[in-house]
Amino acid sequence: MTEENKEELKKDQEVQEELTEEALEDIVEDEISDLEEAQKAADEWENKFLRVSAEMQNIQRRSNEERLSLIKYRSQDLAKKILPSLDNIERALAVEGLTDDVKRGLEMVQESLVNALKEEGISEISTADEFDPNFHMAVQTVPTDDEHLANSIVQVFQKGYQLHERVLRPAMVVVAQ
Amino acid sequence: MTEENKEELKKDQEVQEELTEEALEDIVEDEISDLEEAQKAADEWENKFLRVSAEMQNIQRRSNEERLSLIKYRSQDLAKKILPSLDNIERALAVEGLTDDVKRGLEMVQESLVNALKEEGISEISTADEFDPNFHMAVQTVPTDDEHLANSIVQVFQKGYQLHERVLRPAMVVVAQ
Repeated sequence: MTEENKEELKKDQEVQEELTEEALEDIVEDEISDLEEAQKAADEWENKFLRVSAEMQNIQRRSNEERLSLIKYRSQDLAKKILPSLDNIERALAVEGLTDDVKRGLEMVQESLVNALKEEGISEISTADEFDPNFHMAVQTVPTDDEHLANSIVQVFQKGYQLHERVLRPAMVVVAQ
Repeated sequence: MTEENKEELKKDQEVQEELTEEALEDIVEDEISDLEEAQKAADEWENKFLRVSAEMQNIQRRSNEERLSLIKYRSQDLAKKILPSLDNIERALAVEGLTDDVKRGLEMVQESLVNALKEEGISEISTADEFDPNFHMAVQTVPTDDEHLANSIVQVFQKGYQLHERVLRPAMVVVAQ
């Protein structure tokens, strides 16, 4: 082998090795960019998963709250519509000269209606205590005197009703002022 | 430079290049394994996201169906409990010798109750057609005759009521057989 040939061979080898090295570096660079992309994708899907999981929990919570409220107040509409019947019975009972039979009959209907409403959480609004604008509506005022202190309920014109803590209709009252 | 030195230098370079090449190959292998892991993670998060999204849609659908059903049948419990009051009024109206005033009063209460129920989707079960075990309960049977064909309703003992298509209580009837 001449010195020239040797030099030639060495250069060839170097070029070849450089190529391989370059190719490997390219591969490494590609791999790194693929890896970054894959990691980014994994992060993105994880974030999407976390977001949708949180959203689902919110939906479940809200839906459960709504369900409980629908159940709790389910009788509201029918109850409101039944109250005038109860008023009619009370007015009928106030009429003078009813026979005992008729009176008993009316009272039975009244009692069964009141019980049906009570079982569903509907009760008469109390007028025993002071006037409370959250539960009572003042349709008339009278001056205070020895018997009637300021803000006391003097008379009830029409009974009020509430479903649990929610007012179906306020009691119509006369208030001392 | 001697021939020997040159050989030495060449060997050194080769070793160095081999080392670099090996190191690069290691890096490439590491990168590939990291990449595979990242891709696997991305796939897993994507699958989790898709599963939880599908689950959320199911929950939303079910919760909506339940909500609609709760709203549609909300008056069921109170309505059922009010039916005996309606029966009492009917019985009271059947009593002989009521004064016109009392009769009018009872009819007013009856009408307002029936209307309240109707507005909430509750109606009397028809007994005009043939006996239908889905809506009627036969409490007595009578033999068929010229007026009463087989399976016809001869008499209604107690009215039945339905809320939309759902029976609250069947009509108690006498059937010709």
